[in-house]
Amino acid sequence: MGGVRVAYLKRVLVGPPMSLAQAKHERLSKRVALAVFASDPLSSVAYATEQILLVLILAGTVALSYSLPIAVGIAALLAIVVMSYTQTVAAYPQGGGAYLVSKDNLGKYPSLVAAGAILTDYVLTVAVSVAAGIAAITSAFPTIARHRVLLCVAAVVAIGLANLRGLRESGRIFTIPTYFFVVSILAMIGYGMTATTFGWLAEAPYEPHPPGLEGVGIFLLLRAYAAGCTALTGVESVADGVAALKAPESRNAQKVLIAMGAISITMFLGITYLAYDFGIVPGGEQTVVSKIARRVFGGGVLYYTVQAATTLILLLAANTAYADFPRLSSIVARDRYLPRQFASQGDRLVFSNGIVMLSAFAILLLLLFSGDTDTLLPLYAIGVFLSFTLSQGGMVRRWMRLKPAGWRWRIWVSGAGALTTFVVLVTLTVTKFSEGAWIVVVVIPALVAVFVTIHRHYDEVAHELSLTGFEGPPTLQHTILIPIGDLHRGVVRALQYAKTLAGPDVAIRAVYVETDPARTTRLEEKWGQWGLGVPLVVLTSPYRSLLRPLLDYIDALQSRGSDHMITVVVPEFLPRRWWQHMLHNQTALVIKAALLFRRNTVVADVPYLLKH
Amino acid sequence: MGGVRVAYLKRVLVGPPMSLAQAKHERLSKRVALAVFASDPLSSVAYATEQILLVLILAGTVALSYSLPIAVGIAALLAIVVMSYTQTVAAYPQGGGAYLVSKDNLGKYPSLVAAGAILTDYVLTVAVSVAAGIAAITSAFPTIARHRVLLCVAAVVAIGLANLRGLRESGRIFTIPTYFFVVSILAMIGYGMTATTFGWLAEAPYEPHPPGLEGVGIFLLLRAYAAGCTALTGVESVADGVAALKAPESRNAQKVLIAMGAISITMFLGITYLAYDFGIVPGGEQTVVSKIARRVFGGGVLYYTVQAATTLILLLAANTAYADFPRLSSIVARDRYLPRQFASQGDRLVFSNGIVMLSAFAILLLLLFSGDTDTLLPLYAIGVFLSFTLSQGGMVRRWMRLKPAGWRWRIWVSGAGALTTFVVLVTLTVTKFSEGAWIVVVVIPALVAVFVTIHRHYDEVAHELSLTGFEGPPTLQHTILIPIGDLHRGVVRALQYAKTLAGPDVAIRAVYVETDPARTTRLEEKWGQWGLGVPLVVLTSPYRSLLRPLLDYIDALQSRGSDHMITVVVPEFLPRRWWQHMLHNQTALVIKAALLFRRNTVVADVPYLLKH
Repeated sequence: MGGVRVAYLKRVLVGPPMSLAQAKHERLSKRVALAVFASDPLSSVAYATEQILLVLILAGTVALSYSLPIAVGIAALLAIVVMSYTQTVAAYPQGGGAYLVSKDNLGKYPSLVAAGAILTDYVLTVAVSVAAGIAAITSAFPTIARHRVLLCVAAVVAIGLANLRGLRESGRIFTIPTYFFVVSILAMIGYGMTATTFGWLAEAPYEPHPPGLEGVGIFLLLRAYAAGCTALTGVESVADGVAALKAPESRNAQKVLIAMGAISITMFLGITYLAYDFGIVPGGEQTVVSKIARRVFGGGVLYYTVQAATTLILLLAANTAYADFPRLSSIVARDRYLPRQFASQGDRLVFSNGIVMLSAFAILLLLLFSGDTDTLLPLYAIGVFLSFTLSQGGMVRRWMRLKPAGWRWRIWVSGAGALTTFVVLVTLTVTKFSEGAWIVVVVIPALVAVFVTIHRHYDEVAHELSLTGFEGPPTLQHTILIPIGDLHRGVVRALQYAKTLAGPDVAIRAVYVETDPARTTRLEEKWGQWGLGVPLVVLTSPYRSLLRPLLDYIDALQSRGSDHMITVVVPEFLPRRWWQHMLHNQTALVIKAALLFRRNTVVADVPYLLKH
Repeated sequence: MGGVRVAYLKRVLVGPPMSLAQAKHERLSKRVALAVFASDPLSSVAYATEQILLVLILAGTVALSYSLPIAVGIAALLAIVVMSYTQTVAAYPQGGGAYLVSKDNLGKYPSLVAAGAILTDYVLTVAVSVAAGIAAITSAFPTIARHRVLLCVAAVVAIGLANLRGLRESGRIFTIPTYFFVVSILAMIGYGMTATTFGWLAEAPYEPHPPGLEGVGIFLLLRAYAAGCTALTGVESVADGVAALKAPESRNAQKVLIAMGAISITMFLGITYLAYDFGIVPGGEQTVVSKIARRVFGGGVLYYTVQAATTLILLLAANTAYADFPRLSSIVARDRYLPRQFASQGDRLVFSNGIVMLSAFAILLLLLFSGDTDTLLPLYAIGVFLSFTLSQGGMVRRWMRLKPAGWRWRIWVSGAGALTTFVVLVTLTVTKFSEGAWIVVVVIPALVAVFVTIHRHYDEVAHELSLTGFEGPPTLQHTILIPIGDLHRGVVRALQYAKTLAGPDVAIRAVYVETDPARTTRLEEKWGQWGLGVPLVVLTSPYRSLLRPLLDYIDALQSRGSDHMITVVVPEFLPRRWWQHMLHNQTALVIKAALLFRRNTVVADVPYLLKH
């Protein structure tokens, strides 16, 4: 009855189960795939420019002009990585995430490092994207900024539930926002550039220009470059999700990658240029994109459209991680580096366990960092560039090993990608270490240790359970014990259960713990008529405990034979109403708790359905 | 293993179990009984005077002098009630609480009202006494007043744990504080009166004299009288605990009652007189007793001694409820008006369930009322006077029925007690209704409704389970199902368990849910060698769910016969380390959860001990 109610609740929240026949239709078209997988890299433009400016402003407003060459450098890096990844998706049509590529080409430990990095990053994708999405809302409506953390958590919960309903629906629902965002941002850039050229815009409002605290040096520029590299986050997700695309998977994935790269670079450079041109100073209540949009469109409907589009794509980016985190953790779990339950699929074709884990960790991060994008971002890019490096390094090894047509050229492409991302990785780790990157540097090796420990345990258990060399099980002696406190129809049912179930070699005993000799006499009288011939063992209790004599009796029985199996049959009432559970079965619960995880002891509850 | 650890923790916290042989020694001597049971009424003097003054001050400081006649009136009432109760304890040497006396003489509903009133009051005794005890500390050290609620909760938790360790130890530990309090207060009164007579005391510090907001009228005086009646709380506890005293129980209880009454009246009148004589104005950071003690002893060691003694006796008063609440709830539970588990005794000769309940409700009240004595007290006295009235009314009925020697005189004594307490009860309800007394007026009938509902359910179930007219159980068909995901030593053990346990008429089936036909083929090959001849049922899953096909299969089997018992044998691993539990048994857990409380379905876990 409790079970039925839970199942009903689950049905309402996550929808009916889906059959395997529906699985084929879950494959995504290019148009939908761009919306689902490319939303993550595309949405990064909502915060990447701001991250560059937040570093440069440390040297005063004059230094903000360095944002242009830095942005061009980042766009070049993005182009290199996209080029490199087109090779990866071609080589791995079944899904070419950094874990699989590293495992295939670099071996066990690099692949586990990649898995740790990417799993961490999916959590950060959710946390960062949701935080940035909520920041777009609070930029438009500063009065609700104090509810930021609550809004973030609510968003994660909503996305998690949407994903428990299944991927295809998620894809269909979320197609529109991606294109809505791209169109909004491109329109803002196009109109902004035109308007500023022809002098159509009103005077810029006054913004305080903070004085520079540092000089412009190579370290500051490196930090700004590293901060802007958050624009590259999410590229991996296309490679990871190749298998979810319609056939031909690799060609479609390449097209999605290139389209994503082109749009991403255009938007990123456009936003950075307008920020420079408008003299936008980062910080305060609004995001940089919000400031640009206000400048271009004033405070009207179009401004709110841009903010809405930004929020939607960022929530969709968070959703990307929901498509990939469970998929990757199931792959890792099938390799026995994560608990087995992550490998199994839920009622629907989504991996519920992973979805729940991902939501939980993302909420934890949002609570720890008060839903603040700027403090979360330093943790983010490290894992991204670590997996880039491993993945592309793996591709280099692959080309060297397999030597396919054009392998020298391929090595150049993948090698350039691996090298540049490695340089960025080192820069990121050095420049952002004290800002939170150290957390990732601690977490990833810890995850690898967890993976290895889990794997070793499963290996040992598999060896222990293997039937190879098995001599056959030892012979078992059996006793069924039925602890009783009285004799009534429920007990008779349990006695009958035991009697009709058990074979002739199985001893059956009803066990009664005596607290009052007068009651024992009454019980023994009834036993003659209704005991069904089962012997009644009366245990005396020096303590008034009911449990201790029973446990002592079981100990005594089991100390005789080496493999004496005791099945304890506990009569249990099923009352009609939930609150009546509190009035029954307390003793049964105590017995079950005491015998839980006890060797050679099995507890079986025999239910008795009450009419009242 | 989990069970062992819990048992160990319990042992450390609440001590080793106690044998029945020790039970006799738990009986209390008069000296100890006075400390344990009379601490509650004695401690009431710590707040009763203050409650009178807090009402009178509403009419200005001039009205404070009315405290003297009011206190004399209350002392007279206390004397009447004590006299009346000496008859009760003589008539009920097995324990003469209002519940038993009402049940015996007035019938079911009055006894349930009494039970509801007294159980509510025990909770309030804990809450009020702890709040007042902490107030004595914060009077001495006003800087910690802001931690009041925390201190109150910590005190309740400490007392609760002490009681889980057993009554006798509690009695021994707490003997000293009662006498310490009595001596301290009497010394304060004696020295205070002497010193003020001979003019030894320093000038009184200035206290602001608030202007009167109300005139002195009969209603104000009634309210003040009702407020002071909190001095009578706790008298019931001696009558309730008679059975815990050494033989002759009744005589000893009478002596304890009279001693308690005499000491209580002396202290109450003394404190009220000094408060009047010193012109003490109630309110502010200090209690009235604290102000008197400061005036008498200055701020030195003797002052702190009085405060310490006050705190200790109030905590001991809270402890009284711990001796009585579980005792009464076990009596009520044995009459089947409360859940059965309240009737049972824990590992030690205390009723753990009641102790835990009492602490939980007291903590709830302390949190709701921010640990403030003055706002808790209006709730308190209603239940006390309700049970006084019922108990003494019951005694009147008893004398009328049994007509023992001197029954006319006895009716006069009990009748006077019943009448006066009834008048106070009505006064209390009227004057304190809006201050919180309405809560008690709602809670007591609600409790009576709960008692009656529980009783009716147990009656119906007893009737349903009765063997009278039982035709004998219907014949049972049996099937044992063993859901498996693979074939290994753990599964072989489960198969062997089922085979050697089951009789010849029991069908045994291993059930495998197919997700990949290739795996099925491999399983079937192994099955020939290690399946122990158990038929293997392969279920296909249209959904990738493992659970649904199993449930459908069980449904199909059970739809055939009317009483088809299915025992689902689930192989379960017992790993060596706690964290490894997370790596196993998830499927077993899901199956168990789905079959919990299902009719005619028994789940049996067969444990397999892992070496790794």
